[in-house]
Amino acid sequence: MIWIYVTMAGMIEAYLKKINQGLADLLTDVNRRYGLSRISPQLARYSKEFVLRKGKRIRPLLFVFGYEGYTCRPTADIRGLFTSAASIELLHDFMLIHDDVIDKSALRRGKPTLHKLFDQKIRLADHAKIGPELAIVAGDILFAVAIEALLAIRENPERKELALRKLVATAAHTGAGEFIDVVFGHQRLEDLTEKDVFLTYTLKTAKFTVECPLVMGALLAGAKRQEIGRLSSLGIAAGQAFQLYDDFLDLFASQKIIGKPVLSDLVEAKKTLMVIKAYR
Amino acid sequence: MIWIYVTMAGMIEAYLKKINQGLADLLTDVNRRYGLSRISPQLARYSKEFVLRKGKRIRPLLFVFGYEGYTCRPTADIRGLFTSAASIELLHDFMLIHDDVIDKSALRRGKPTLHKLFDQKIRLADHAKIGPELAIVAGDILFAVAIEALLAIRENPERKELALRKLVATAAHTGAGEFIDVVFGHQRLEDLTEKDVFLTYTLKTAKFTVECPLVMGALLAGAKRQEIGRLSSLGIAAGQAFQLYDDFLDLFASQKIIGKPVLSDLVEAKKTLMVIKAYR
Repeated sequence: MIWIYVTMAGMIEAYLKKINQGLADLLTDVNRRYGLSRISPQLARYSKEFVLRKGKRIRPLLFVFGYEGYTCRPTADIRGLFTSAASIELLHDFMLIHDDVIDKSALRRGKPTLHKLFDQKIRLADHAKIGPELAIVAGDILFAVAIEALLAIRENPERKELALRKLVATAAHTGAGEFIDVVFGHQRLEDLTEKDVFLTYTLKTAKFTVECPLVMGALLAGAKRQEIGRLSSLGIAAGQAFQLYDDFLDLFASQKIIGKPVLSDLVEAKKTLMVIKAYR
Repeated sequence: MIWIYVTMAGMIEAYLKKINQGLADLLTDVNRRYGLSRISPQLARYSKEFVLRKGKRIRPLLFVFGYEGYTCRPTADIRGLFTSAASIELLHDFMLIHDDVIDKSALRRGKPTLHKLFDQKIRLADHAKIGPELAIVAGDILFAVAIEALLAIRENPERKELALRKLVATAAHTGAGEFIDVVFGHQRLEDLTEKDVFLTYTLKTAKFTVECPLVMGALLAGAKRQEIGRLSSLGIAAGQAFQLYDDFLDLFASQKIIGKPVLSDLVEAKKTLMVIKAYR
């Protein structure tokens, strides 16, 4: 049992290294091939710096697991697998950048948000603060790069098309989840139902963080329709549970356990499911 | 000669009808299939209203021409051609929505910009004005829909992948053009070179409006590499000429000819190539 755990941990470590390398190589390549470093060195440099910050990389890991679970080829032989896995991380980065603009956040992954970074680093004659405007566009570009990244894997083109359809459907769903979440933030607690809040959990966390990466990997590996259906149900349920547990930890765990201040959901007046339940 | 002109005009009219129908059908389908109308009726309704506003549809038209010019199949037989053509129009809409947020514009195509529409139509308990935040997300969703639209055409999957790579590379280039354009707007005229301004023309207009749709169509039709190279050069040159002529008309034509007030570039203090040249 311990042996399995050690092997798993070692494998995850090795995969994380490959995912991070895939991200770094991709951005170097894109900046060169699209000429971004020439068009705007600041755009290229700070977007890359933002993406390569330390993160959990849970989505690309699940993508690789989804692929491994259904393929009959040895993973080491699959050219471009880890670059494709980076696509879902880039989609996440693009959304974080836009969310930070929307929420006017100053910090992300322990460093300035991208719009703050642009404001600090780009010198303008009129000293205007246009970081948020520039970060909207930088996020859009990362969305484009995310799509391209997915195409990197050497796999059957029909499967790639299925995985791509899953990626863009999930991007649309996550966007819709963010849309209603922003609206809910300006509504009264008594006007929101548990169903409303649970829908944002499903769209913003369950589908995007867990279901989509698993299903994309499985689609690329050629999993059958029925298997995809099961994996999707599993991913959504696991993702919903993850979000509920996250809410729970924020209220009842210690800073030592969750690695960030507790009760921060309450401080930010987030309308979590537990807040709604407590209010009722 | 007149006969050719009449035939061309009739053909364009017929294509425009199919493109508009393709856009309408796609949005109805996406709103239903992604459940957007259920998640947020306002998001679904106003995004659709925005996209279906009267526009020139020059990009999807060039896409269809690019396809027709290189295919050996009769266009009428190609299922999904006009839905695929709609992809470049949706990409344009997504960019317009974000540009309008960045420029804080109030009108687009003679009606309120999408963020203004959200502010007018979405009632919030705290009366906050969050239209721009919501429009950023609505734009992101249309980008996802644009990618899906491109996949509609019944064509060889390798060709579809090539066309998709072109679409996302162009989205990245147009974004980079917008990025430097926003920065240039806050710099002194004397600090900008003709080369700087011409680069924004190439990225924002020539590649996006002319070259990309033509080349995407040709790639889907299976045009050879060398032909694509030629078409790309032609598209970029035509697009640059189009932008220069547009600048010229703004200064020297009449409102009757261009259908909008003349000298508006000067009123908006746009740093056009002619302004830079006049300043030197």
